[in-house]
Amino acid sequence: MSQIGHNRQTPLLDTVSSPEDLRRLDEDQLRQLADELRVEMINAVSVTGGHLGAGLGVVELTVAAHYVFNTPDDKLIWDVGHQCYPHKILTERRERIRSLRQPGGLSGFTSRKESKFDPFGAAHSSTSISAGLGFAVARDLAGRSNDVIAVIGDGSMSAGMAYEAMNNAGAMNSRLIVILNDNDMSIAPPVGAMSAYLSKLISSGSFHSVRSLAKEVAKKFPKPLEQAARRAEEYARGMLTGGTLFEEMGFFYIGPIDGHNLDHLLPVLKNVRDSDHDGPVLIHAVTQKGKGYEPAEKSADKYHGVATFDVVTGKQAKPTPKAPAYQNVFAKALIAEAKEDEKIVAVTAAMPSGTGLNLFGDAFPERTFDVGIAEQHAVTFCAGMACEGFKPFAAIYSTFLQRAYDQVVHDVAIQKLPVRFAIDRAGMVGADGVTHQGSYDITYLGCIPGMVLMAAADEVELMDMVATAVQIDDAPSAFRFPRGEATGVEMPEKGTPLTIGKGRVLREGTKVAVLSYGTRLQDALKAADDLAARGLSTTVADARFAKPLDQDLVLRLAREHEVMITVEEGAIGGFATQVMHCMISAGVFDQGLKFRPLYLPDFFIDHDKPAIQQEVGGVDSTAIVAAALQALGLEEDSAAVQLQTSR
Amino acid sequence: MSQIGHNRQTPLLDTVSSPEDLRRLDEDQLRQLADELRVEMINAVSVTGGHLGAGLGVVELTVAAHYVFNTPDDKLIWDVGHQCYPHKILTERRERIRSLRQPGGLSGFTSRKESKFDPFGAAHSSTSISAGLGFAVARDLAGRSNDVIAVIGDGSMSAGMAYEAMNNAGAMNSRLIVILNDNDMSIAPPVGAMSAYLSKLISSGSFHSVRSLAKEVAKKFPKPLEQAARRAEEYARGMLTGGTLFEEMGFFYIGPIDGHNLDHLLPVLKNVRDSDHDGPVLIHAVTQKGKGYEPAEKSADKYHGVATFDVVTGKQAKPTPKAPAYQNVFAKALIAEAKEDEKIVAVTAAMPSGTGLNLFGDAFPERTFDVGIAEQHAVTFCAGMACEGFKPFAAIYSTFLQRAYDQVVHDVAIQKLPVRFAIDRAGMVGADGVTHQGSYDITYLGCIPGMVLMAAADEVELMDMVATAVQIDDAPSAFRFPRGEATGVEMPEKGTPLTIGKGRVLREGTKVAVLSYGTRLQDALKAADDLAARGLSTTVADARFAKPLDQDLVLRLAREHEVMITVEEGAIGGFATQVMHCMISAGVFDQGLKFRPLYLPDFFIDHDKPAIQQEVGGVDSTAIVAAALQALGLEEDSAAVQLQTSR
Repeated sequence: MSQIGHNRQTPLLDTVSSPEDLRRLDEDQLRQLADELRVEMINAVSVTGGHLGAGLGVVELTVAAHYVFNTPDDKLIWDVGHQCYPHKILTERRERIRSLRQPGGLSGFTSRKESKFDPFGAAHSSTSISAGLGFAVARDLAGRSNDVIAVIGDGSMSAGMAYEAMNNAGAMNSRLIVILNDNDMSIAPPVGAMSAYLSKLISSGSFHSVRSLAKEVAKKFPKPLEQAARRAEEYARGMLTGGTLFEEMGFFYIGPIDGHNLDHLLPVLKNVRDSDHDGPVLIHAVTQKGKGYEPAEKSADKYHGVATFDVVTGKQAKPTPKAPAYQNVFAKALIAEAKEDEKIVAVTAAMPSGTGLNLFGDAFPERTFDVGIAEQHAVTFCAGMACEGFKPFAAIYSTFLQRAYDQVVHDVAIQKLPVRFAIDRAGMVGADGVTHQGSYDITYLGCIPGMVLMAAADEVELMDMVATAVQIDDAPSAFRFPRGEATGVEMPEKGTPLTIGKGRVLREGTKVAVLSYGTRLQDALKAADDLAARGLSTTVADARFAKPLDQDLVLRLAREHEVMITVEEGAIGGFATQVMHCMISAGVFDQGLKFRPLYLPDFFIDHDKPAIQQEVGGVDSTAIVAAALQALGLEEDSAAVQLQTSR
Repeated sequence: MSQIGHNRQTPLLDTVSSPEDLRRLDEDQLRQLADELRVEMINAVSVTGGHLGAGLGVVELTVAAHYVFNTPDDKLIWDVGHQCYPHKILTERRERIRSLRQPGGLSGFTSRKESKFDPFGAAHSSTSISAGLGFAVARDLAGRSNDVIAVIGDGSMSAGMAYEAMNNAGAMNSRLIVILNDNDMSIAPPVGAMSAYLSKLISSGSFHSVRSLAKEVAKKFPKPLEQAARRAEEYARGMLTGGTLFEEMGFFYIGPIDGHNLDHLLPVLKNVRDSDHDGPVLIHAVTQKGKGYEPAEKSADKYHGVATFDVVTGKQAKPTPKAPAYQNVFAKALIAEAKEDEKIVAVTAAMPSGTGLNLFGDAFPERTFDVGIAEQHAVTFCAGMACEGFKPFAAIYSTFLQRAYDQVVHDVAIQKLPVRFAIDRAGMVGADGVTHQGSYDITYLGCIPGMVLMAAADEVELMDMVATAVQIDDAPSAFRFPRGEATGVEMPEKGTPLTIGKGRVLREGTKVAVLSYGTRLQDALKAADDLAARGLSTTVADARFAKPLDQDLVLRLAREHEVMITVEEGAIGGFATQVMHCMISAGVFDQGLKFRPLYLPDFFIDHDKPAIQQEVGGVDSTAIVAAALQALGLEEDSAAVQLQTSR
């Protein structure tokens, strides 16, 4: 791909700002367009950072889909959406493509509010077939005739939701086109029987001949032969191989085809478009993540997510971290524990490096389980191991644990099984934005009887909480920690178990008390400095536990201060609720207390830097100061209050 | 089955109180034992009510599994667990079997705390393979050699969780035996492509010969031939037909076999037990729900769940209801709306009669969708339809909506799609017990930005909320209502839309204010009578909305009363939290208020009558009175307070 790098000329792409423009091109121009699109995407992501490998893998698929189908009337639904950058460039968003994932810029995923060409927003995996079937059924009910195309990756096929949708679609007569984008990679290489099955389909001897056959089929039926259409389908079906599993699920299977070869893609898509087949079709396209950019192709993760980088060398501009990432602190702590306790096992749902379990897996390969994108199964699998005396750590992001909520309640908590939930990416997550915010876990876990809930204020406390969780053998427990770099404090070799249900006081004051849950502690300390500078003596405490709550600490803070503030990086119903009910039980509010709980607001927070998101969310040091001043009737002093109330 | 009915003699069963006893019998005695077990089960359920059809379908499977496998060392895990009554009779619980689902009696499902023969509790579907794989992996890690047998119904196979587990198990070398209990019924006939696939396996021409082949295989290999075991497996595999889909998923497939024929079951189970096959095995057993009891066999739902009944006639002693069931009120209301609005569609996840959507489906078959046990897909499928301007009602029980939590957040709420959630079985559910309590929905939905949350106080309000939800076209909305009979008030033909975010005052008082959310309103009124009798003038209000909250009403109640009480049939973090934050924003607690929120406690509530569960949960009229008296310092007057505080 000689034109990548120095040559940034994109003459053909410059004439295409929408799929309508694209569809005016000749078919033999599309190869050049795809090449230019790849160049443009690489250059754009080199300055923004973001998801690169996935988009590179679907450049031809994107061009072919918009060329063959009449988007946006035909609905093109991308699963997850991190592969949608080429799609965004072609759908009226090229001039904003260098704002990807930047504050105020384009989302890194598909988004209904961003474009009519994004019929369904995504970011969590495996939703596209369900949504697509909804669009298809709605079309049928409304008597329309548009096509619906759901693209889904092979990694996403390990999630039960995709299966539920296929099971439903396969038994209906609604016309739905599913393109399986099989690059043998999700974020990590996918695991599980489905993945093995797909590999078998591809590696079967008939693969190469199929490629040419697909071409032959297309030649034979360049246009819909009204009468013979159904026969043509039968013919194509007979010639193409494999896919039994999908056919048993009620899908018409076509593939595998080369997802980078437009001479294969275009006729197959046209054939499908023009056939009168009712019911679901699955086109199995084989692609290569990172395709066409050598540094990505050669990288183990295919440049799944990258920082800004030099286009020529591929070298990423990752600043030297000042402190380790939280997930690696978690892994370090768990490895230290596991060396001394052979019952410790760890489970990830397709996020080995995101959760740090790749490190744990290096140390204890037999005690590490990557179950695929399958959070529901992950949790109940842990429950089964816990029944047999093992100490499972389920390492799942806050936002993805939502996928396994019923399993936490029904399989773990009701049975009081000591599954340990390591909840990563708790709180604001930065550039991934609205779909990935870890906002709800304190609330949705806090209402489940008997769970022990912890939040780490820094990396040392995270290590201590890992050690604590190891010891909690009679109840489920969870500890949350944020995305990103830890605070940089010195860490021990191994955590020290905490006293269950006990917080700590970091600074004693007299007028205002700030009780923090989790990493907001740093902002609480900063706020205390600001308040002290105004002559308001401030106590700062770290609750450590939301359940069981340190009732003595809560009541002492309430009793000894004029104003009490809680702060947490979570939504309504979480830590503050636990604190309020504790105070109500003790009659604190009967007498009156200026209590100001700070928690995330009742709106979704878009992608931005985490510090900005915390500010927008009203849980930063400015908000703490403003709350204290407001409670004390001093708000005129503070410009920040205006910000707060105008929100 | 001549011995069913008048003849209650069970001489052989009388000698068997545990699997150990069972395994002392000769193989040719097992047919008689199964027959007696069936008699005993029918007689027991005739006096307790409960799940009948499912248990009748697995009598032989239960006998064979305990006979062949060394339970409880070998782990027998039932999915859902409503088919476990014969299992309970054989596992040391026969003398308590007539306490099934009764207060203080046996659970209607499997339960770890009830018996060592229940290695994993269940009640929600499709968990057994995940749990079983956990047990299997734990066994491998611990170096043990016990077997793990997960039984799962064909209906449960539509859930993504089962697929996630199979996808994981199919790629591992852990020995796991899955018995697919295929009775072509879950609660309703199962739907979806998997169901169709299973039917095809069974109806294929080779089925009958397979039955005899299975027998042949078993004869040829009555004991493990150490050397030839692997070859024997290959042989068996070659002879038995079908199951390609399962084999592609990495399972060794055996079947279909007749699940009522012990001459087939026993040798197949022994063969599997004695083989040295690593990895998962799937035995496809075909059974008949309700088998061996004519009234059940002839009934459309195969006596899935029954009241007490007359054994001879099968006639159930269902008392004439005083009022319609809430789900039928919901259906009536939705039908009335749908007659005038063709955009209304309704979705159920395998609960057509439980949700009342069977009635809606009779009226609007093309606008009714049963997607199978697939709550995740159900919700995102609704989201897709909502994108296209339809008005989907997702009718899902509170406890099962937990399965789709991420989809509510990610696919519906973030995109502000107007999916309407009809949340049935909200609050205490009675005999189904701990696993089915609808305790969490107010909390887990209340923290999601932008959702409209309603709870109906009676059937008229439910109709009004259906009408309201139809009109809420710019946000997701949900309305909750309980299990069971409505209150019996007169209903209109059609609901009247409510003003969003407005409650109502039913009774004006001066001293105590009770603000109820949902059907606790009846108890609030009763409590007000009791308080009035003590000279305590009490206001009673119905909040109707938790979000948006009627802030004017809340603040007026707080301002004008000495004590304010909220009551809801839900856990911490729900309605009371919304009310508290409203009052905090207005500075109510700065001055002091005797606020007493009543909500479900931090423990799981076992099966009992709903009224008792509400009492145990501290949300009944007694609790309201006690809270008011305690707040006013009058608690010495009330015996109920002791109950409250001693809990």
